Amino acid sequence: MHIITLTTDFGLADGYVGIMKGVIQGICPGAVVIDLSHDISPQDVHSAAFLLHTAHPYFPPDTVHVAVVDPGVGTARRAIALRTHRAFFVAPDNGLLSFIVAHEPVEGIVHLNNPAYWLPQVSDTFHGRDIFAPVGAHLARGVPLEELGEPIADVGELVTFPLPRPYRRPDGVIVAQVLHVDRFGNLITNLPLERHGEAESIRVEAWLPDEPQPVVFRPQGVIVRIRGREIQGIHRAYAEGQPGELIALIGSAGYLEIAVPGGSAARLLEAQVGDEVTVQVREV
Amino acid sequence: MHIITLTTDFGLADGYVGIMKGVIQGICPGAVVIDLSHDISPQDVHSAAFLLHTAHPYFPPDTVHVAVVDPGVGTARRAIALRTHRAFFVAPDNGLLSFIVAHEPVEGIVHLNNPAYWLPQVSDTFHGRDIFAPVGAHLARGVPLEELGEPIADVGELVTFPLPRPYRRPDGVIVAQVLHVDRFGNLITNLPLERHGEAESIRVEAWLPDEPQPVVFRPQGVIVRIRGREIQGIHRAYAEGQPGELIALIGSAGYLEIAVPGGSAARLLEAQVGDEVTVQVREV
Amino acid sequence: MHIITLTTDFGLADGYVGIMKGVIQGICPGAVVIDLSHDISPQDVHSAAFLLHTAHPYFPPDTVHVAVVDPGVGTARRAIALRTHRAFFVAPDNGLLSFIVAHEPVEGIVHLNNPAYWLPQVSDTFHGRDIFAPVGAHLARGVPLEELGEPIADVGELVTFPLPRPYRRPDGVIVAQVLHVDRFGNLITNLPLERHGEAESIRVEAWLPDEPQPVVFRPQGVIVRIRGREIQGIHRAYAEGQPGELIALIGSAGYLEIAVPGGSAARLLEAQVGDEVTVQVREV
Repeated sequence: MHIITLTTDFGLADGYVGIMKGVIQGICPGAVVIDLSHDISPQDVHSAAFLLHTAHPYFPPDTVHVAVVDPGVGTARRAIALRTHRAFFVAPDNGLLSFIVAHEPVEGIVHLNNPAYWLPQVSDTFHGRDIFAPVGAHLARGVPLEELGEPIADVGELVTFPLPRPYRRPDGVIVAQVLHVDRFGNLITNLPLERHGEAESIRVEAWLPDEPQPVVFRPQGVIVRIRGREIQGIHRAYAEGQPGELIALIGSAGYLEIAVPGGSAARLLEAQVGDEVTVQVREV
Repeated sequence: MHIITLTTDFGLADGYVGIMKGVIQGICPGAVVIDLSHDISPQDVHSAAFLLHTAHPYFPPDTVHVAVVDPGVGTARRAIALRTHRAFFVAPDNGLLSFIVAHEPVEGIVHLNNPAYWLPQVSDTFHGRDIFAPVGAHLARGVPLEELGEPIADVGELVTFPLPRPYRRPDGVIVAQVLHVDRFGNLITNLPLERHGEAESIRVEAWLPDEPQPVVFRPQGVIVRIRGREIQGIHRAYAEGQPGELIALIGSAGYLEIAVPGGSAARLLEAQVGDEVTVQVREV
Repeated sequence: MHIITLTTDFGLADGYVGIMKGVIQGICPGAVVIDLSHDISPQDVHSAAFLLHTAHPYFPPDTVHVAVVDPGVGTARRAIALRTHRAFFVAPDNGLLSFIVAHEPVEGIVHLNNPAYWLPQVSDTFHGRDIFAPVGAHLARGVPLEELGEPIADVGELVTFPLPRPYRRPDGVIVAQVLHVDRFGNLITNLPLERHGEAESIRVEAWLPDEPQPVVFRPQGVIVRIRGREIQGIHRAYAEGQPGELIALIGSAGYLEIAVPGGSAARLLEAQVGDEVTVQVREV
């Protein structure tokens, strides 16, 4: 079975995505093509990069993830493909794979410069159709990564953007950042949290990239602050809050999330991507 | 062949739906996954319930319908699966299957409490990914319903919401209600209508749940009233009305529908779900 | 393998598209169904016709393209199917195939009047479900076109709308028209352009339907005018312009396109479909 995912900022109204799927079926007949999102804001590379990061672990081994948010299409920016231990990624070299290369061991990277695996005619404005979809389809049907172009020796040669990393201030307060706002107005931050234990013994662990051990605290022993508001404790589920109440919880991707049950935290707080979130904990 | 449909309020921008499809392909490779809608208004259980009701008859036998509109995710609300003579349904027990259990003979219900058929790690905020998609995929690949959890003996034990039922007032006027407003602004009501015969002999039958026989009338022998406006007769097709004219007709799901050809009845009338519609007929 | 594309103005919120896919799977199990667009503006036959025209060349041979933008559903308008050398098209006879029949040799046309290939019950309001999806599915599984209804002898018997054709004024200026505005606000015109050569020797060829030879000019030897603004030269890629700058380039479908890198030409110019674009060239 061949699975290909698509992530673009093309929207679904203009047929661009359908055309990519037609190209894929011509090269890898019967491929299962899954849309991750086509509603990435135009040219919002960060958002698409975060989506790839949170979604790819849920796909079968060897899934091919094709991402095309590509303001530099037709310029000298490279097209790349890379392999991790569980998946392939195909994208312009513009930061779209920043989270992936920061979190996953990379087993191989190529510069997509072998036109044998492109459409015969390549436009200067739609490489999604002419390069990325065909390359993804060839990968899915088993063409080795190395055939697709010249090797790139090191992840360090790729264009990446700096990932905002949560850290501790001297006073011990954790400083995090809003990475994504979803359809429900939930604010997903960059602070990884894990819950352990049951009932009285529940502990939450916050993982900071610069510290080898997690920060451990009780769910109720925490104050989250964002845009001048204070939130007490980490809830388990949206419905544990009152309708309209601002709550904090562990979101489905394993990050601290701020939500309003039955409402929108983004609207209530006028919050957006990049906003600072501080987390003051009473460690145990 | 394995067919799974998805109905959620997740939208398509955030990747939640794509992630569910990745999980499904991992469990039931090659499953055909069909989106019914992901644009259910956030937490609008009624709307999703009506959609399942009108859509499921058009799918092949043994299709698995997975519906996740789930404001109570992470709380004590149950997750359930049930089998009718033609399909499986997987959903939180919150009323999503109200129309199904009211209209279809149910052959078996289980409480989804067997974690062997979930993802190994279950979040408190995304059971669509961690429970409902995996269970739907296992059902599609042939796992018996009974394996998925403890039986629930009776439909009466499920959470359902009262279905608005059309009825006759003492003066004979039929009282119905708007159940759904579609993209075109058409108002779909809860009054089942059937057309019989051709040309001069056309009769329309209205079926009321409390009456064993239909109310029978000629298409032109009816006055429909909604929000202070009167509509004469039941048209056959949208294009039989004048552009901008308010008309009544039999919609594609077999219910009385109010429309404006080339316009929007919802906008013209400022109408919404729940609005009352009366139907005065001259019976034949 | 069986590929069917769908193009409608149904949107994705109401389940109409999912229902069509259920019908298709019942008739042609395992068919690969690809959405071209369901966000055609309600009843915008022109837009859907242009989309079919630009998308269909990218699909494998014998793909079945089903298009349902159908304000006349339930009236006497015919339903048709036709075959070109590379694909099948199924649609109401209302102009949806205007571009196709103008650009592709047609090998056969039928009036879809054989109810053996429809659903057993046909509504007056949703032929997408009851006629077009079933017919498309039967074509995909190999039913000969001729089985589906009575032959229509000639393309001239079909309803088509006049295609705006680019032409030269007596002063040599080319007059074109905006055919489509896409999600990015790019204005796609009806003037076919091709680029040839590299570096210093690049030439652009404009093809006019009334002239046997192309108009040939250098990319920099052109002034494009629209809504009182002048654009110098034909760029290669969006990113060659400055952010916010109005540029002209050759779009992915091979037509003159007007764009604003990082912005929206449609918004900047308050432009829309039908707007005139003039192209003054210094021929070489």
